[in-house]
Formats: sequence, C-alpha cells, structure tokens
Amino acid sequence: MEPIQQLQAHLVDVIRLSQIGAVLGWDQQTMMPPGGAEARAEHLATISKVTHEMFVDDKTGRLLEEAERAAQGMDGDSFEAALVRVVRHDYDLETKLPTALVEAIARETARAHEVWVKAREASDFAAFAPTLERIYNLMRQKAEALGYEDRPYDALLDQFEPGMKTAHVAEVFAGLRDELVPFVQQVFDRLDAVDHSMLHLHYDVDKQAAFGLDVIRKLGYDFERGRQDKAVHPFTTNFSINDVRITTRYLPNFLPSALFSSVHEAGHALYEQGSDQRLEGTPLAGGTSLGVHESQSRLWENLVGRGKPFWQHFYPQLQQTFPEQLGGVDLAAFYRAINFVSRSLIRVEADEVTYNLHIMLRFEMENDLLEGKLAFRDAPDAWNARMQQYLGVTPPSDREGILQDVHWSSGLVGYFPTYALGTLLSVQYWDKALADVPSIPDDIAAGNFAPLLDWLRTNIHVHGRKYLPAELTQRVTGEPLQYRSFMRYLRAKYSEIYGL
Amino acid sequence: MEPIQQLQAHLVDVIRLSQIGAVLGWDQQTMMPPGGAEARAEHLATISKVTHEMFVDDKTGRLLEEAERAAQGMDGDSFEAALVRVVRHDYDLETKLPTALVEAIARETARAHEVWVKAREASDFAAFAPTLERIYNLMRQKAEALGYEDRPYDALLDQFEPGMKTAHVAEVFAGLRDELVPFVQQVFDRLDAVDHSMLHLHYDVDKQAAFGLDVIRKLGYDFERGRQDKAVHPFTTNFSINDVRITTRYLPNFLPSALFSSVHEAGHALYEQGSDQRLEGTPLAGGTSLGVHESQSRLWENLVGRGKPFWQHFYPQLQQTFPEQLGGVDLAAFYRAINFVSRSLIRVEADEVTYNLHIMLRFEMENDLLEGKLAFRDAPDAWNARMQQYLGVTPPSDREGILQDVHWSSGLVGYFPTYALGTLLSVQYWDKALADVPSIPDDIAAGNFAPLLDWLRTNIHVHGRKYLPAELTQRVTGEPLQYRSFMRYLRAKYSEIYGL
Repeated sequence: MEPIQQLQAHLVDVIRLSQIGAVLGWDQQTMMPPGGAEARAEHLATISKVTHEMFVDDKTGRLLEEAERAAQGMDGDSFEAALVRVVRHDYDLETKLPTALVEAIARETARAHEVWVKAREASDFAAFAPTLERIYNLMRQKAEALGYEDRPYDALLDQFEPGMKTAHVAEVFAGLRDELVPFVQQVFDRLDAVDHSMLHLHYDVDKQAAFGLDVIRKLGYDFERGRQDKAVHPFTTNFSINDVRITTRYLPNFLPSALFSSVHEAGHALYEQGSDQRLEGTPLAGGTSLGVHESQSRLWENLVGRGKPFWQHFYPQLQQTFPEQLGGVDLAAFYRAINFVSRSLIRVEADEVTYNLHIMLRFEMENDLLEGKLAFRDAPDAWNARMQQYLGVTPPSDREGILQDVHWSSGLVGYFPTYALGTLLSVQYWDKALADVPSIPDDIAAGNFAPLLDWLRTNIHVHGRKYLPAELTQRVTGEPLQYRSFMRYLRAKYSEIYGL
Repeated sequence: MEPIQQLQAHLVDVIRLSQIGAVLGWDQQTMMPPGGAEARAEHLATISKVTHEMFVDDKTGRLLEEAERAAQGMDGDSFEAALVRVVRHDYDLETKLPTALVEAIARETARAHEVWVKAREASDFAAFAPTLERIYNLMRQKAEALGYEDRPYDALLDQFEPGMKTAHVAEVFAGLRDELVPFVQQVFDRLDAVDHSMLHLHYDVDKQAAFGLDVIRKLGYDFERGRQDKAVHPFTTNFSINDVRITTRYLPNFLPSALFSSVHEAGHALYEQGSDQRLEGTPLAGGTSLGVHESQSRLWENLVGRGKPFWQHFYPQLQQTFPEQLGGVDLAAFYRAINFVSRSLIRVEADEVTYNLHIMLRFEMENDLLEGKLAFRDAPDAWNARMQQYLGVTPPSDREGILQDVHWSSGLVGYFPTYALGTLLSVQYWDKALADVPSIPDDIAAGNFAPLLDWLRTNIHVHGRKYLPAELTQRVTGEPLQYRSFMRYLRAKYSEIYGL
C-alpha cells in the first residue's frame, strides 16, 4: 500500500470511535433518562481517552511523516494532499499539548461550569473572575504550546477556523463595525415601525412541529439519512455522511424559535449530508470549519428562511395551520414581523442586524484578556462600555452582560468569531449562487429548493474538508472573505422593512 | 492497591466500552435512520474489536492470576471472590478461542444469515443444510477449545448459563416431558372451551401504548432510569444499572402482543435496575445468566401478568380504555382468553403450556447434531417426528418447522434451553415469594406490586452476578432447579381454565 493509503487505513478506527462519541452525545441530549447521566459521563470519558490514545499513537506520527513525503510532489488539489494536510492539522492539535495542560484545562473547565452557573444566577462577575483568569492563563499556555507567528489568538482561532488569522478578522470586523454601528442606530430609531406582536401568541407545539418538519423536508433535508428530535439546546450531529441528526425546541408563545432553529440546523445538516460519498469514513468528510458551517446554517435560516420568496410559498400553508393567529395578518406584515429588530442585550436572542456586534465585542475582549491588555476585574466595565458604544444600550447586570455565555467557562476562546464569519460568508455565497442561477428566488417562491441546494452541493458541500475555508471561499466566489456584501444585503433589506 | 482492586480498576474501561456497544445497538434498533446502517456496522465492529483487545490484554491475565491467588483464602460469598470467578469465566470465553476460529465463526454466520432467510422463504431446508453443517462443525471446534468434562454441549451451554450441565438439563427435561406431553394432549382435546376472538379485534395502538406504559410504571419499572421505545423485535438493554431501556411493538389486531411483551421486557429491566448500586461499573452488575433473566421476565409476564389478581386490578381500566371491544366481556372470560392454548407450530407464538416442548425439541436436536448422532439431511424429519410426538402436529413445511428460528444461523447453539430453564425457575421463585409473603396475590389485586418487587429485589436482583445460577436458586428456594413446581402450577391453572 502507498503511504497515504496506509495512513487513511490506519485512521479508520479513530474516525469510527469519534463518531461513536457523537452517538453517545446525541443520546445524552435527546433520549437518555436522568439516571443515565453519571454512567454517560464515564462512557464519554472512556471513548475520548481511547480515541485520543489511538490517534496520537507513534504509528500515526510515522505514517503521517511518510505520507507527507509522498504528498510533496502531488497536486495540491488532490484528495491525497488534502488528507495529509487535514490529518497534520488534527494531529498537531492533539499532540502539541502536554498531557498535564490538557488535564489542567479539563479539571478547571469542569469546575468552572458550576462556578459560572452560580455567578450568573447571582449576577456576580467577581465570583467568576478568578476562575476566568485561570482559564485564560491556561488558554495562553495552550496558544504557546500550539504555536503561532503573530498573535496568541491565532493559535486558538485556528482550532475552529483553520488558516484564519486574527489580523484578518480584526480588519474585516473594523470595516464592518464602522458601517454597522450607525446603521443599527438608524434602525433603532424606527423600531416601532414593525409590529411583531402576533408572533408572541399561543401556537400549538404539535402543529409547529408538523409544519417545521414539512419545511425542512422540502428544503432537502434527507430523513432517510437523518432524524429530528427535541433537545434543550438545538444542535446538529453526525455519525456518518448518511446519518446526520438535528434537534430543535418548541416555545408555545414564540413562533419563530422552533421554526428558524429547525431551518438553521437543517442548514448545518445539509452541509454534512452533502459530502461526497467517497469521503465516507475518511478525515475529509464533513464541514471544513465552523465558519463555513455557520455560513450554511445562516444562509438557509436568514437568506432563505427570512426572505420574501420563501414565505410567498409557505405563508398560505402557515396561515391555514394557524388561522386564528395569522388569518388576519397579510404576507407583507408577517415578513416584516419575522425580521423585527430589537435592542437585545442577549446574543442568542439577537436579530440579523445586531448579531455581529455582539460577536465583535467578544472577539475584542478575548484578545484583550488573552494579551493582558485588560484586567479581569475591569472586564464587566469594558463589556458594558462596548455595548453602549456598539448598540447604544448598557446591561443593567452582569447576568445580562458578561456572564451570559457558557463558552469561556468551557474553555472555548477563539470560537465566537466563527459565528460572524459564517454570517458574512453566507451572503457572499448567496450572491454568487444568484449570479450563477438567477432563477433561485423564483424557484424558492415556487417551493422548489433544488436549484439552490444543487448549487451549494456542487460548490461547497461535496468538498467536505478538502479545501481550507479561505481557499474554498476564493474558489467559490472569486474573492476573499469581506463584509461589504453583508452590509449591502442588510441595507437593502432593512431599509425597506423599516422605511429608512 | 490490593490485587483484586487492581483487577477491578483495570476492567472499568472494558465495562464502559461494552456498555457503549450496547448504546450503539439500542440506537440501531430504535432510532437510527436507514442511511446509518452501513456506518453503524462499522461502529459496532470497531467497538467490539477495541473492547475485546483491551479485555484480552496480557495485563488482564496477569492481574487475574494475582487476584485469584489473593482470593484463595477469602469467603466464597464475598464480592471479591465473586468478582474473580466472573472475570475468569468471561476471560476464558474471550481468550480460549483461537483467533482463526473466532473469525471463521464470524464469517460463516454473517454469510449464513442471508442463506437462512432465503431458505426459509423458499421453505427449502436442503438449501440451508450445508451451511448449518459448517456452523455445527465450528460449534464442535468451539466446544473443544472452551473445554468440557462430559459432553461438548456443556461448553456451549456454559456461555449462557454458567455452571449448568447438559446432563442436568436432560434429566429435568425428561421428567417434564413425561408429564407435560399427556397434559398438553388433554388441553388440546378441549381447545374449543376458550373463546379468544375478542383479542383479535381492532385495538388503537396509541391507547394500547398508554395502557401498557401505565402498567409497567405500576409494576415498578423506573422511568427515571429507563425508557420504552418501539422496535421490530422487543428487547431490553442497559448501559448502567441506572439506564435500562426496553422496547415493544404494537399489533393493531392482537391485543396481548404489546401488552405482554411490555410486561416481559419490564421483567428483564427490573432485574437489571435492581442490581446493588455498589455493583455499578463492575463486572458483577446485571443478570447472572440468561435462564435467571428469563425467570424474571416470565414471572412478571405469566405468573403476574396472566394471573387473576393482576386483572382484578387492571381489567376495569382496560375495559374503560376499550369499551367497544371489551365492554361485554366479563373478567372471567377475559382471563380465560388471555391464557388460551393453541396447537401452534411456531415457538415464538406458543403459549405457556406448550412453550417448553418447543424448547426440549431444540435441545435434543442440538445435542444430536453436535454429537453426530443425527445426519443433517435427516434433521427435518427428526424435527417433524418430535413435533408429532410432543405436540401431536406435523409442520406442513420446513418454514413452519426446522427453519423457523434465527438462532442457529447466528451460531447460537446452547442458548434455547435457557428459555425453558427460566420458565421453570419463574415458578420456583414465585412459590417461594408467596410462601414468604402470602399477601402478594391480594397486594397485586389491590394494584400494589411493591411487596413482590421488594422480595425479588432482596432475594435475587441485588446480587447481580454474585452467585452462579444454581447457587442462587439453592439459596433462594432451598432446592435445585426442578420441573415439579411448574407442572403443579400448570395443572392447577389450566385444569380450571379448560375444565379438565
């Protein structure tokens, strides 16, 4: 066997074991009875240990080096070259960290969760600050161990968005902020222009579920290769290209929640289901980065699901499903309502217009904390000052401010930017899809989502992890990541909705 | 650490990995979309390989030998002594077989399944005979490798019923047969005495499900530590003492199917949920043998669920659930109906009275085939002759005869007897429970199942695998396995029902 095939064969068990870990996680969040929790923690610990040990085995390192030598003369565009690059990326992530550091992070974050929960309940950042400081110290050590050329944040970001640099994100965010902050203010001045009260009436959850299932089936989510269940926090997971599962949750008094979360997760799932079947069981199956993954979920949720053509098709059916609540609401009013903007303090409740500002704030704070430019005791003030600067609101408490997200307590630093990168990319991809296939809006209005899905499949999904995110974006759109397309989209859509 | 504690600590990962395998199997049969099948086969293959390799590691053997030396002076009744015995039993099963034989069995049975399915469809035993002969040859090799003192079947039986000997089973079955065959004939002569037509009406499956859930909850199945789902073949599985899951299936035109299968599986689950919590994560958690497991499922299904006191409590509720079908059927008539006997050719459809005859036939044939006393080409005739002798009926085709069960094609030889042993044990345990707690029938009639469950918990469940089946039965009932209690029960119950 050739070295690259040897490497691939050697990794099959590792891939299957990590998929098994995903099955355990899915069951934990959807099906497991409460009594199973303790044993499940053990199952997850055992499977990660076994998977890790098998992956970082000396043999992997040896085969990888041989494969790298063999790949040197190869077409960079080939399956083989991509395989070697991806395995090297993952292998370095797993091997560069000293065991003592990995254990210290696991211990600290396990403890931190409880501390964060209590601090948030009490809205008391001071109670969380020492823990957060220890986590950031560990993150700094992690960055040093992983290595970086320019800024420590590069090493952390690279875990989630391979190849992306902090300087690039900072540049894109700076440009976006300069345009977005004044635009948000314009919209905020006109918030009363949109009535969304009908979304907060009572909507039977069984009817919501049936409608949502019908929607995602029509989008192209393949139920022969997936299923949808309920979970406290909606997520997508997969155990194969052909077993990609999604979850959602239903709020009886807020219609958009389950509906758009279903479309969002279906967007993630379509990406996973769309990998080339030849990638099954290889490290190249799946999404190339969290940012590109988010571009797919946001494209379906926002560009498609909150767009006019989508509701031209689905609104009559939704009205029939909920005649009491929506019988007297016309399509134009409903379209405005589902796109309502608000002065939310909470990221997960934020709309399309304000969402990225919540992310930029976190990106800037993460860098300042990591590089020691901001003292932990001053972090809430820095948070609140940025909220005032970007959104014109000041959180009345830490609970609605710096303590709102679970990420930092879990050791996820460098993760937040991918949400915003995905949002920007979603518009770049969408614009290109429409340029290539101008009929897409009309197709959607006719309930035909195949032309859009085909375009995404061909241009993005089939490749799996073959291309780095930046490479993929360049190949697909002919340009790098940028914020201008997003701002153009936002201005056009929301100027109309809010009569600016 | 002491040697026995070292052994226990060493095996924790093995136990967790085998529980993980059970999660994968549960998902496969209850939740998995069709597309996931191929990857799931890979997941299962990977997890069994990893589990096996970790278990048969030289270190296990070394620690086991040291633990055995340490256990020599110990109380045979202790946790430690039992642990060493159980691990030795499992370790020998996993290590005594040469890899080449394990692979040959896996290959042959994987191929055999398809051959059996087709042969059964075509009702053509000749098409299956060469495969079956190869499987029995492999079983003979397996018996030789595992070792036995008396008969090769001992080695196979011991996998499922540790410590049980073929000669003992043969002796018990011979006595049972002599009494059962004429009794069955007496009942067969009076089959018209019981009308069960009302059970075959249409019963809404949602209402069946709600009623069944209510029943097993009242029996004591703990939904905080388990759940019930639908599956093609009902089964019980567990991933911990505190996560024990059951499944059932609903037939719209046969009420007893889902109801009694739910009670049956709940019986298995109560055994698993009842292990002493101190056994969690050790090899001693769970049931001590398939026979004792089956005693628990049959006890709840037949002794409790098909008994008069049970329906004194539940029948009014069932009548309210299905007033059209059962409103005009009184309790006595319903009790007779759910205990109807039939001349079924098919084991899985057999009633309490005839069931054991189906098992004896298989036990005798397995021994004859294994010991070369019966040629494979003559096997269908031997089957049919026994059916005529035991049940007074001759299968009109191999499909309804020798080809009906999946077991042999899967390499399960020595498994069938445990169904009958469990049935016999169920009555022995039941009799003892009633002798100890005479109020049990009245408690059940009042809907109070706790006294019975408490007795089973204390006497059987808490011990897990601590005692060998024969040891447990002796401790609990003061006597060994025997058939007389069963025959006495059968005579009393069915003489009344059929007016003998």
